[in-house]
Amino acid sequence: MTTSVQLSEVPRIAAEVAQRLRSDAVERERVGAQPTVEVALLRESGLLRLLVGVEHGGLGGDWPLAHRVIHTVAAADASIGHLLGYHYFQLWRTRLFDVPEQQTRLERATVENSWFWAGVSNPRDAALLARPVPGGVSISGRKFFATGASVADRLIASGTEEETGRKIAFTLDASAPGIRYLGDWDNLGQRLSASGGVEFTEVFVPDGDVLGQQPDREESRAARDSLAPLGFQLLLSRLHVAIADGALSEAARYTAEQSRAWPLSGVEQATDDPYVLAEYGRLDARLAAATLLVDAAARAFEEAERQGTALAAEARGALGVSISRAKVVSTELVNETGTRIFELTGARATGARYGLDRYWRNARTITLHDPVSYKAREIGRHLLTGELPPVTGYS
Amino acid sequence: MTTSVQLSEVPRIAAEVAQRLRSDAVERERVGAQPTVEVALLRESGLLRLLVGVEHGGLGGDWPLAHRVIHTVAAADASIGHLLGYHYFQLWRTRLFDVPEQQTRLERATVENSWFWAGVSNPRDAALLARPVPGGVSISGRKFFATGASVADRLIASGTEEETGRKIAFTLDASAPGIRYLGDWDNLGQRLSASGGVEFTEVFVPDGDVLGQQPDREESRAARDSLAPLGFQLLLSRLHVAIADGALSEAARYTAEQSRAWPLSGVEQATDDPYVLAEYGRLDARLAAATLLVDAAARAFEEAERQGTALAAEARGALGVSISRAKVVSTELVNETGTRIFELTGARATGARYGLDRYWRNARTITLHDPVSYKAREIGRHLLTGELPPVTGYS
Amino acid sequence: MTTSVQLSEVPRIAAEVAQRLRSDAVERERVGAQPTVEVALLRESGLLRLLVGVEHGGLGGDWPLAHRVIHTVAAADASIGHLLGYHYFQLWRTRLFDVPEQQTRLERATVENSWFWAGVSNPRDAALLARPVPGGVSISGRKFFATGASVADRLIASGTEEETGRKIAFTLDASAPGIRYLGDWDNLGQRLSASGGVEFTEVFVPDGDVLGQQPDREESRAARDSLAPLGFQLLLSRLHVAIADGALSEAARYTAEQSRAWPLSGVEQATDDPYVLAEYGRLDARLAAATLLVDAAARAFEEAERQGTALAAEARGALGVSISRAKVVSTELVNETGTRIFELTGARATGARYGLDRYWRNARTITLHDPVSYKAREIGRHLLTGELPPVTGYS
Amino acid sequence: MTTSVQLSEVPRIAAEVAQRLRSDAVERERVGAQPTVEVALLRESGLLRLLVGVEHGGLGGDWPLAHRVIHTVAAADASIGHLLGYHYFQLWRTRLFDVPEQQTRLERATVENSWFWAGVSNPRDAALLARPVPGGVSISGRKFFATGASVADRLIASGTEEETGRKIAFTLDASAPGIRYLGDWDNLGQRLSASGGVEFTEVFVPDGDVLGQQPDREESRAARDSLAPLGFQLLLSRLHVAIADGALSEAARYTAEQSRAWPLSGVEQATDDPYVLAEYGRLDARLAAATLLVDAAARAFEEAERQGTALAAEARGALGVSISRAKVVSTELVNETGTRIFELTGARATGARYGLDRYWRNARTITLHDPVSYKAREIGRHLLTGELPPVTGYS
Repeated sequence: MTTSVQLSEVPRIAAEVAQRLRSDAVERERVGAQPTVEVALLRESGLLRLLVGVEHGGLGGDWPLAHRVIHTVAAADASIGHLLGYHYFQLWRTRLFDVPEQQTRLERATVENSWFWAGVSNPRDAALLARPVPGGVSISGRKFFATGASVADRLIASGTEEETGRKIAFTLDASAPGIRYLGDWDNLGQRLSASGGVEFTEVFVPDGDVLGQQPDREESRAARDSLAPLGFQLLLSRLHVAIADGALSEAARYTAEQSRAWPLSGVEQATDDPYVLAEYGRLDARLAAATLLVDAAARAFEEAERQGTALAAEARGALGVSISRAKVVSTELVNETGTRIFELTGARATGARYGLDRYWRNARTITLHDPVSYKAREIGRHLLTGELPPVTGYS
Repeated sequence: MTTSVQLSEVPRIAAEVAQRLRSDAVERERVGAQPTVEVALLRESGLLRLLVGVEHGGLGGDWPLAHRVIHTVAAADASIGHLLGYHYFQLWRTRLFDVPEQQTRLERATVENSWFWAGVSNPRDAALLARPVPGGVSISGRKFFATGASVADRLIASGTEEETGRKIAFTLDASAPGIRYLGDWDNLGQRLSASGGVEFTEVFVPDGDVLGQQPDREESRAARDSLAPLGFQLLLSRLHVAIADGALSEAARYTAEQSRAWPLSGVEQATDDPYVLAEYGRLDARLAAATLLVDAAARAFEEAERQGTALAAEARGALGVSISRAKVVSTELVNETGTRIFELTGARATGARYGLDRYWRNARTITLHDPVSYKAREIGRHLLTGELPPVTGYS
Repeated sequence: MTTSVQLSEVPRIAAEVAQRLRSDAVERERVGAQPTVEVALLRESGLLRLLVGVEHGGLGGDWPLAHRVIHTVAAADASIGHLLGYHYFQLWRTRLFDVPEQQTRLERATVENSWFWAGVSNPRDAALLARPVPGGVSISGRKFFATGASVADRLIASGTEEETGRKIAFTLDASAPGIRYLGDWDNLGQRLSASGGVEFTEVFVPDGDVLGQQPDREESRAARDSLAPLGFQLLLSRLHVAIADGALSEAARYTAEQSRAWPLSGVEQATDDPYVLAEYGRLDARLAAATLLVDAAARAFEEAERQGTALAAEARGALGVSISRAKVVSTELVNETGTRIFELTGARATGARYGLDRYWRNARTITLHDPVSYKAREIGRHLLTGELPPVTGYS
Repeated sequence: MTTSVQLSEVPRIAAEVAQRLRSDAVERERVGAQPTVEVALLRESGLLRLLVGVEHGGLGGDWPLAHRVIHTVAAADASIGHLLGYHYFQLWRTRLFDVPEQQTRLERATVENSWFWAGVSNPRDAALLARPVPGGVSISGRKFFATGASVADRLIASGTEEETGRKIAFTLDASAPGIRYLGDWDNLGQRLSASGGVEFTEVFVPDGDVLGQQPDREESRAARDSLAPLGFQLLLSRLHVAIADGALSEAARYTAEQSRAWPLSGVEQATDDPYVLAEYGRLDARLAAATLLVDAAARAFEEAERQGTALAAEARGALGVSISRAKVVSTELVNETGTRIFELTGARATGARYGLDRYWRNARTITLHDPVSYKAREIGRHLLTGELPPVTGYS
């Protein structure tokens, strides 16, 4: 199937993948296996090559389309949408380095081998250590929360050179000797996102796989080089609205099909209950608003990326504010939606077999990636003083 | 100035009008005179002809641009933005009748005379009475809340024929003999919107000014004919976000320039207070989301209108849901913003001379036009059952 | 221990029971066994006899004290607090019938045998069938959601006599032949509350265990006879505030001991983060308010009960409104607290091993018992028109 | 009337005063005269002596009763309730100094002359200057926001001795030569609270009217000496709940008597509208909860005061937290209530003649006295670390 995928077919394919995932989402989450089958489904769908340029065998899609795909998949299964989004993101990050040939090689290989990508880069852990060895570097250390790494084909990571203190980025085979996946992801939500830690013991990375120095935020190319944290934050907001979307759709289906009217309501069907109707209406309206905010940020992100090194700090800052707005609104929305749907479906909907709590668990887990109050603070500061958001691993 | 206006200049002109209005908005509202000077300003600006086709001497703008103009003006002075929006709306409504020549004549006259339009059509009052007389109809009755009528050049209204029960629409000279403006608008907000009642005593309307039967919602052209209430509801949502925008900007200016840091905050300036910053951020983010929702609805409205009589009931219904979403989100936002800004500016900002309460008063007044819970209900019903919103004077 | 319990010791004993339950609450909930050990703990504590009159060997406590005990226990383990509250309630219900000797016998037996009580009475199921047989009645049918029944010693239930249509109430041995516990409780929260269904197949109930006709709400004694649904609703509100209390305490402990300051916060410790502090403050304040509301309702309930058959419909109605107020406020609070604590503890607190999600799951499950909007409606109606709440199985 | 007042009559008298004030509250607020007539009404009612000991001719009431009276009056007219509350507070403050004879004299004179008290003490202004002169001190300087001073008989104030830097407190005749009332209070709400500034030009205060050194917070008696800011904050919370109470009652009356059912609602009367009913219910429930919180804090304050110098820092801190809880909950409630009532009364209720906006304006003005986020922070810190609130002019 994958060889014949056209860009125009992407939404349909995404919908099919989503449909497959939705059909047994509750069951798969309960079992909680490594998402190997799901990643295989993504691989077979041809969607993994969406952002790869046509000249490298890819579909030449852009970020707005990628977001649409991620949304569709994540609404059905937030963990798998999470994995897919990170895949796009990690492969895309290789473009931010000045290594066009290597980047070309990686994109081609991604298409040829249907590589699934992941990253190892939690900014709050100690850095990996990169020790020069003949023909490459040797990587050691441990990182937590490396979403997707244990089911990936290819990783992107970074390490600090002991002598120079320079931080270098590199890609590597996810099954290279010396890599151990800790399998220690056991959190409330995003349970199929394979977000456990990774341990590196003298893992050899050949020079040809070193992407170069980790984007240096102080330099002239700083704005473009520091797009990665913004693209990442944008992905989180996308997951938020997709989860809210999935929650609302699933709850609406339940209400329509299974909920009973409350005896005192004076109506015959739950779908005529005035409180149920109005609350669905409010959530639906807020979801539409939040989604437009994420969509607009995705378009802005695409535009910023296209500016390349011409991207000005002001523009990067404005993009950052726009992404933070999406995060603030979508965070509140998805947590609220995840919990309110129960008032709309009723007591029996708390039955474990319906799995309606997964939306709240996924929301609660993903929205805590970094504290949203500091995004709100950043937006407020920009409004009051014009100050741009700081450039950090989270903004 | 007006003769040379180009479409591309419209945003700048709107900004200039807004700047003029903002400079003495508090003072003008306190005085509370009829908005004659303000309407003259709109007239001189050339903006009144924005939606008139180029072939009739207008600027050929579309609804999204009109919304942008209304937003700019209403953020500075919600009453005047209100008047301008209704002007666009009431003139545009004449297109919904099958009287191209008359419509052309009205558009041309609007350009030539810089007519300012208003409507007389509160659906909750008793209908005006239309009695056939030689050469026309004679109109009698009383209507409340006819925003802008008392400062308008031209009115659009409707009345019921006594014998037939048919409801006919017509336009008339706002200073025609027999019209009396009650001047009884004395509400908390939108104080300069000239929203008092009108009394008609045997006002003669020549046959040539009868637009025809009021859109009949049951017929095949029903979807397009019933666009008016949707366009109207959309305008209300636009006013909501514009007021919230004005409130937030004005408050931010106050905080930056005048607020003092709270002694226990540990910071030197109010613009460094963590609570002030984050709350500004939250409101700013929500405003952005709500604005995108109104913008999207305005584009959808323009598209629907362009479909003319080909507009299907489904499409009309989807548009209605989209406009109701905008209303639900913007209503909550503007009321919240109008009240929260005080926590961000501090105790002294309650001084009457700053007039910061006008945003809340305007918000509270305009958001009550019709109860938002029923919009939420309508959206919820559509989500749960697919049912389209009812076609009424309010939806 | 139990023999020597004094009323003054009750708070300390409750605290000890809570401490025991808290120590392994996460682990016990994960295992999800029948709460046999926990009920044994309650039995040994002597707390089961709290409401039994001193003249029958009980402690002679009143409802406010019982609520205090339930609060303490439920804050530590909401399921067990739930069971204890229902125990008090079901035994107390036997007082509402005009069978003093039987009631005395039951209270004495409760003390002597440390009976644990439960009820079988979900109003939304079909009624059990009561067929007259020599010396008693034979009960058949199926009821869902009989909290605690499967671990109880004694049950209270009701059934409809086929011929007469009268509804009679009775007590019975929980291990009587013909009773089958379905073990089908598998919901998100209150997982240790043993709330599965019960099937009765020709279960014999001797005449001496029939309490009499189920309180008839239309009669003169109606107000007092219909106190049961109010006492039950009050219990639910108590569980709400207790769960919120437990959640906030546990989260505060986590934040103080384990949370890390956010890098951008500029503070060294999470306990100095301005957003964390203020949000804890808001939740703590709301919890205090909600708790006072439940406390006041518990005192009012005690007073109403003491009035016995002298209780007027007006007084019963006012009590109902007061209990509904407690429910409205506590429902919003506990759901909000259950979800907000994660923003206060941080990403790592979503680790499954901490079990911090159990508060939300418990809250979400228990607050759905019956829809809170109808409680709000009832209060609003009383405020606007003076109308008393209807007397139903839920109000 | 005043001579015969008994403590048991106080609630009735307060209700009568409230009734009088309510009857023309909208009109009086519009006129905006100095509240001379209103203060006369308070004087005649006998309520001014409520807190004065029986041995001094007073009623010997306690703070909980005073709060009840303030509540009743402020629900009808928030400005006058404000004035009455401050009167109680300012006279009570004289007890915190070690001058029993002077205090006795002041209380007796208050009864004999029906003195109305006010204070001049905004902590954010520069201190008044106190220059020693023969037989007393001479006071100069300017203070803002001295609620009630311009209509008071007697003032309490403080000033700093130039040479020593000591801050001394004193009382003085409100019409003493050299005092000028600026009459500059023109804020959104509390318009009849006479909260303008005061200028002192060499105002002579005899030694006999010096109360002593302003409570020194660092000393052993610190806890009791610093009760004043707590009592003051408690008063603010009382005003909050009273305003919310007045708003809700007045709105309910309007809805019941004047609101029309919404055509799409399917009900005949506004009092049957499900959204109106449930929202009234929610506000009513929250008001009940907030009021209990203020009541409990008032009782705790009375108890703390009775401990006198034995009051421990811990107890003072716990009281502070309890009062801050009341403030956090009541602030949110009263602002919300002031704005939500319009959704419950409908569009016509925005008519200026109904004056329903005064609740919001009063709420917005009084709740900004000092920023509530710092109260929330204080509560949160206490919960997380046990730290007591700082002792300041606001806490």
